[in-house]
Amino acid sequence: MSRIVALCGGVGGAKLAYGLANVCEADELVVIVNTADDFEHLGLTICPDIDTVLYTLAGKENPEFGWGRAEESWRVMHELEQLGGETWFKLGDKDIALHLLRRQMLGRGMTLTEVTRVLAQRLSVAVTVLPMTDAPVRTMVTTDEGELPFQDYFVRRRCEPVVKAFRFAGVEQASPSPQVESAFASPGLRAVIICPSNPYVSVGPILALPGMKERLRALDAPVLAVSPIVGGRAIKGPAAKMMRELAIPPSALAVARIYGDLIDAIVVDEQDRALLDLRESTDPTLFVAQTVMKTPEDRVALGRECIGLIDRLVRKA
Amino acid sequence: MSRIVALCGGVGGAKLAYGLANVCEADELVVIVNTADDFEHLGLTICPDIDTVLYTLAGKENPEFGWGRAEESWRVMHELEQLGGETWFKLGDKDIALHLLRRQMLGRGMTLTEVTRVLAQRLSVAVTVLPMTDAPVRTMVTTDEGELPFQDYFVRRRCEPVVKAFRFAGVEQASPSPQVESAFASPGLRAVIICPSNPYVSVGPILALPGMKERLRALDAPVLAVSPIVGGRAIKGPAAKMMRELAIPPSALAVARIYGDLIDAIVVDEQDRALLDLRESTDPTLFVAQTVMKTPEDRVALGRECIGLIDRLVRKA
Repeated sequence: MSRIVALCGGVGGAKLAYGLANVCEADELVVIVNTADDFEHLGLTICPDIDTVLYTLAGKENPEFGWGRAEESWRVMHELEQLGGETWFKLGDKDIALHLLRRQMLGRGMTLTEVTRVLAQRLSVAVTVLPMTDAPVRTMVTTDEGELPFQDYFVRRRCEPVVKAFRFAGVEQASPSPQVESAFASPGLRAVIICPSNPYVSVGPILALPGMKERLRALDAPVLAVSPIVGGRAIKGPAAKMMRELAIPPSALAVARIYGDLIDAIVVDEQDRALLDLRESTDPTLFVAQTVMKTPEDRVALGRECIGLIDRLVRKA
Repeated sequence: MSRIVALCGGVGGAKLAYGLANVCEADELVVIVNTADDFEHLGLTICPDIDTVLYTLAGKENPEFGWGRAEESWRVMHELEQLGGETWFKLGDKDIALHLLRRQMLGRGMTLTEVTRVLAQRLSVAVTVLPMTDAPVRTMVTTDEGELPFQDYFVRRRCEPVVKAFRFAGVEQASPSPQVESAFASPGLRAVIICPSNPYVSVGPILALPGMKERLRALDAPVLAVSPIVGGRAIKGPAAKMMRELAIPPSALAVARIYGDLIDAIVVDEQDRALLDLRESTDPTLFVAQTVMKTPEDRVALGRECIGLIDRLVRKA
């Protein structure tokens, strides 16, 4: 059996995962998701990237916000506001139902991997969605205002503080889950696809797991990234702003450089075709495709494109 | 300052607490509430009696169900059902908002007493509402089908199993909170009123707290109970069914006998006026009043009646 492993953060990654899920057999695709922006809030364990991936694969994501559920209501949040509770992190009613179910299962001693498997089943998601680890890893953002927990930086402060560095608290003690290990160890592994997610705070934590980079370098299968930066801007989220604050001109090439020798090729958008002339001989292979996914059809087209590109790749190593 | 202490369970007790709150100054009334039917569910700490008392005092209780909030919606519960979660214990959206807020405060290390004080403030409840203890006490119901946690018996099994006995798990290790202690120790204590709540599972756990019976017996102030049994039936809940199953013919006199020497008098309903002829010389004083509270005015009238009766009472001891 051939297998594709996708590494994935939130919105952009989830869209490509949706595309891949529509061109792969269910048992061919394993989506490994960042958990470093998970956090505890109101006694719930919120897993923004896992939930975005699950909701998107289930066709239930909110098309407007890039997080949460479609056809959502806000009764609980409204009452929490009346009661003087914290409402800076918006949780819709449907979303809360899932968080309560997760809370209950975690409370019974299930791992996040097991909980995610059950939630995927309940949402009729057929492909395998794996948290990168069952251990708590939490992104901390070093900013000009001091270190902030990721959601404080991202939601409460709307990415306003200037970024200086990232720290993934707990990552040294974490390890990829056994399920993640075995996805990579699959003899039929055909490729690893790094989805168009933030390289610092979405893919970064996955790559920071002990042994993960070594594992990628040692693969026989090729590693293909899709750039989340198009025309010097992030499709969604703070990736480009972070690059600028870290004194890196935002571009798909900069993304390629961040991944360095971990990837064999990167897919850049049609808008960035000119980058073909700028690339250095040491850069990974550059492919051009339509990477901006506005419609479900765009997602499937990019998924199909990525699967097609895989076979044109030869491992550098 | 004179002070009234009311011991209270759910619906009936909450209604009299509402009545008393409307005829006492806010700082005159302390309502001590059963916590033995609290339970952990979906990772939340649910305190049915405290919440019924808070919602009722705030004028926000659901008039139909006898639990939960008025003008409630069920979005979370509906989605939880879609996700295959547990829905046997109905939690409305507004209710969930309060549970999340409580969960968050408990998670920060606040005691249930402190949390309840904050929730009362947020709901604009002016009188003092105190959980009977900050320690976990959980009612276990011995039935013909074995021992059941209270909410399993009460909600999931709708009180169907035949009751044989009650056990308040944890009560030996619990103690009345310091705030409960000081309410009883108030030099201005004018009376203790045992509200028309289930004597076994609502008032019973309060009285089972270490030292509580001794404390009641040692008071200078009188103790007045209001019977939850009217015309041989419970106004609401399983009190009469429990009595029958324990081979005690349900009546207001049976309630008086359960409380025994802890009370100086009991208020029975107009419908039970005939009990005046049946009472034994050893029974506590019997008062007759309209105890069935259908309207807010009924509650206030019974509250006023109770306050009036207090001064006619002399301590037996």
